[in-house]
Amino acid sequence: MKSKTHAGNFFEDFYPGMVLTHATPRTITSGDQALYTALYGSRFAFSSSDEFARSLGFDRAPIDDFLAFHIVFGKTVADISLNAVANLGYAEGVFGVPLYPGDTVSTVSEVIGVKENSNGKTGVVYVRSTGRNQRGDMVLEYVRWVMVRKREVEAPAPEVTVPDLSGDVAAGSLSIPTELNLTEYDYALSGSAHRWGDYSVGERIAHVDGVTIEEAEHQMATRLYQNTAKVHFNQHTESQGRFGRRLIYGGHIISLARALSFNGMENAFKVAAINGGTHVAPTFAGDTIYAWSEVLEKIELPEREDVGALRVRLVAAKNNGCEDFPLKDSEGRYQENVVLDFDYTVLLPK
Amino acid sequence: MKSKTHAGNFFEDFYPGMVLTHATPRTITSGDQALYTALYGSRFAFSSSDEFARSLGFDRAPIDDFLAFHIVFGKTVADISLNAVANLGYAEGVFGVPLYPGDTVSTVSEVIGVKENSNGKTGVVYVRSTGRNQRGDMVLEYVRWVMVRKREVEAPAPEVTVPDLSGDVAAGSLSIPTELNLTEYDYALSGSAHRWGDYSVGERIAHVDGVTIEEAEHQMATRLYQNTAKVHFNQHTESQGRFGRRLIYGGHIISLARALSFNGMENAFKVAAINGGTHVAPTFAGDTIYAWSEVLEKIELPEREDVGALRVRLVAAKNNGCEDFPLKDSEGRYQENVVLDFDYTVLLPK
Amino acid sequence: MKSKTHAGNFFEDFYPGMVLTHATPRTITSGDQALYTALYGSRFAFSSSDEFARSLGFDRAPIDDFLAFHIVFGKTVADISLNAVANLGYAEGVFGVPLYPGDTVSTVSEVIGVKENSNGKTGVVYVRSTGRNQRGDMVLEYVRWVMVRKREVEAPAPEVTVPDLSGDVAAGSLSIPTELNLTEYDYALSGSAHRWGDYSVGERIAHVDGVTIEEAEHQMATRLYQNTAKVHFNQHTESQGRFGRRLIYGGHIISLARALSFNGMENAFKVAAINGGTHVAPTFAGDTIYAWSEVLEKIELPEREDVGALRVRLVAAKNNGCEDFPLKDSEGRYQENVVLDFDYTVLLPK
Repeated sequence: MKSKTHAGNFFEDFYPGMVLTHATPRTITSGDQALYTALYGSRFAFSSSDEFARSLGFDRAPIDDFLAFHIVFGKTVADISLNAVANLGYAEGVFGVPLYPGDTVSTVSEVIGVKENSNGKTGVVYVRSTGRNQRGDMVLEYVRWVMVRKREVEAPAPEVTVPDLSGDVAAGSLSIPTELNLTEYDYALSGSAHRWGDYSVGERIAHVDGVTIEEAEHQMATRLYQNTAKVHFNQHTESQGRFGRRLIYGGHIISLARALSFNGMENAFKVAAINGGTHVAPTFAGDTIYAWSEVLEKIELPEREDVGALRVRLVAAKNNGCEDFPLKDSEGRYQENVVLDFDYTVLLPK
Repeated sequence: MKSKTHAGNFFEDFYPGMVLTHATPRTITSGDQALYTALYGSRFAFSSSDEFARSLGFDRAPIDDFLAFHIVFGKTVADISLNAVANLGYAEGVFGVPLYPGDTVSTVSEVIGVKENSNGKTGVVYVRSTGRNQRGDMVLEYVRWVMVRKREVEAPAPEVTVPDLSGDVAAGSLSIPTELNLTEYDYALSGSAHRWGDYSVGERIAHVDGVTIEEAEHQMATRLYQNTAKVHFNQHTESQGRFGRRLIYGGHIISLARALSFNGMENAFKVAAINGGTHVAPTFAGDTIYAWSEVLEKIELPEREDVGALRVRLVAAKNNGCEDFPLKDSEGRYQENVVLDFDYTVLLPK
Repeated sequence: MKSKTHAGNFFEDFYPGMVLTHATPRTITSGDQALYTALYGSRFAFSSSDEFARSLGFDRAPIDDFLAFHIVFGKTVADISLNAVANLGYAEGVFGVPLYPGDTVSTVSEVIGVKENSNGKTGVVYVRSTGRNQRGDMVLEYVRWVMVRKREVEAPAPEVTVPDLSGDVAAGSLSIPTELNLTEYDYALSGSAHRWGDYSVGERIAHVDGVTIEEAEHQMATRLYQNTAKVHFNQHTESQGRFGRRLIYGGHIISLARALSFNGMENAFKVAAINGGTHVAPTFAGDTIYAWSEVLEKIELPEREDVGALRVRLVAAKNNGCEDFPLKDSEGRYQENVVLDFDYTVLLPK
């Protein structure tokens, strides 16, 4: 009898044009958002208060953008990265319609590139994943590429296909919610008077605080996203593995860094795009995460006088305060304690 | 002045026919379900997606069946098992109407048997507990028996009454929701194409993954169920106890094993009955739980062509992968690492 | 460029009459209540069951009173106590309208006193904080005073202003919900038959159980309240600090003690006032919290025959059972293991 369990796809299973409809649609609830708050302590008013969201033209508060990201992403793991060696990068991430409690999300991925590595044991798979709500509206679309093991080393290498990915999401591709109206934006309730115009390209902000991660926290977070990657949950096998410990889901660090960034970017109320991102080094329970940001670009939005976008580099480091903005050494290698180098676009009132 | 605190009932307080109306009715919310997902990572589409549940004829997704079990069960602890030495078994568990966020659950138990142990210090109490929603509909009914301490060793032994319990729940006693309609069941979204007909009696499935339990996780779970058993929460006293550590609520292991069983039984969308179950050995924080299943029986349901039931043995083991299906040794004793031997009935599309 | 990050206010920034509108309004949800239940295991029927609350004249169950307290309190931290050395006390705390899932809370504080300490390095700041729902109704009002560091030791001492605070909240100031109707109060579902009349002044109740705190639990709780005090989250810096460990938010202990008090005060269904309170000693992960109560006063409520109030001292101790009611030694100093001495007023059916 053929095994009924699911071992995930291996490198040779993927081919350009392959479409994967991922399992387990998920209805988002206010309970998910409450847990998200408990896990990261996010304080952006737009996702915290229905009344604040209403003052901006919305019916109620949408869930946090990275909670949406994790839910969309989590579904892809069982089909794409169960046999992954490494999550290599993100590109062309665009947030579409906001997600509200009660909405149901599904994810479909298309393979857009494959490239076997020279060692013949692994290859890189590029996928574009799209999360949609129950009406079929796009919630989030992004490309990621992962290094995946081959099932059999002897399997022939496929023709190389590498997608031509943009280094950033163009202003015209950003999805600005049509209901957004910033005329009543309350800068006392949002926590800061700093608007889009107050930030400058090249400006760096160290986000002050550090947060120590516990095993129970990252496990609960990762399960909340229905992300089934083994390395996050099984100390019995990881104790024999490369690090001797459970690895923390990289997205957990993104959310921690985004929550820390509130202190200094309080009015970056909405994430509009993910231009790129690298999980530079692994993190483990007991690590303390700090973060800093650099404004990479100021983006004027077409036909919007009231809102602008900032392209921001968000860097997280572990067990190392960020007052000195750790990033790379003189030879271009990431410094020892840097764990995340993330490039994303946020919206602020003008 | 008489003490106002509640010390729980002792063996001599129970008598056949005694009815206990348990305290603290509980309104279930989507927050409970979110926490349940975060604690176990359940991926069954029926409890995860309102849209998927609608496609099966329901108004929305019911909460996970074992979340319902734990909530119904938790209420009984303060009255029945606060002075228990061991939770000995379950039988005749039947799930009735599904529970939805917004429903309020109460539990009433009836004592159906008492039998003093020969040591004169403890006795076995059999209770049938029934959880009902705010309309009085039965949500879950089950028998369990526990070994309870006597308050005073000199108390006379009661007449022995041992209920005649069925070893399983008959097909005709299973409650199939009347709204259930499987014609639009989506096997891509559910995560597997395997239907009822694809499973064979005797088939064994090792559910691949292992999950390590943290103290914060099992404590939060057990409190979520308002289960007040002392051994789960108090390291100060447990450090002096038999194991030197907090014991994990046995139901936590049931839920972990059920969530692990998704990999291989993705379409077992609903738990219909609990035929029996034994918590074979205690578990502690740091243990990694694995699980395997064996199909014990294929059950045709009266007047249903679209849905069938499987009676399944669900076994959990700690710190021991389940590829070799650990259970009992040649002398019929449970193997060292087995912690749960559970016998339940699930529904699958035909 | 001026720093965009927020370092919090220092002693010399505060002056009597100063009004602080705190950031990040918060919509409370059933997810918050679910997490609160998971964190503390509260079993009071009034906050657990919509049906029970309806039987008392309410539309649905309000959230737990101390969850409301923590949410109102949490918002004040970034402005008031980010540079605090110690949280010295509470007074004149009055709960107003109940908070329901869906309500949005904001907090405004007014400085009502300042007094520099003789060391010239710190001073005491008194604030009255008021939480309101989206309709502007008062949810909770309380005074607290904290010792705050000066930014510059040379800054001149302000004129001393110390508010004249009441030692308790008078019966006439208690807010009894107008919808409250206790004629159908169900003493089986509430868990005890003991009413207001069954308690006597001077009566002491040891609440039996102890609960061990985990790092993940207090961190998740404190973030749920959007409380940003650094000492609770950063092991990297705290390992070099006074205690070498993360400190637990004092309010976490209040909630644990209140939940423990259910055993013996099951019908104290509503907290009406906080008369005073002291966090006597710090607590850390691994500590086991016990609690006991003493009835300080029996309060008749104006024009209410059905409900009465008890003024209660709620004491929490760590790693020390409360059967012997630990409090102060013969010289009036708190005993070693006492961590909380809290004076509050609860409502019970008569």
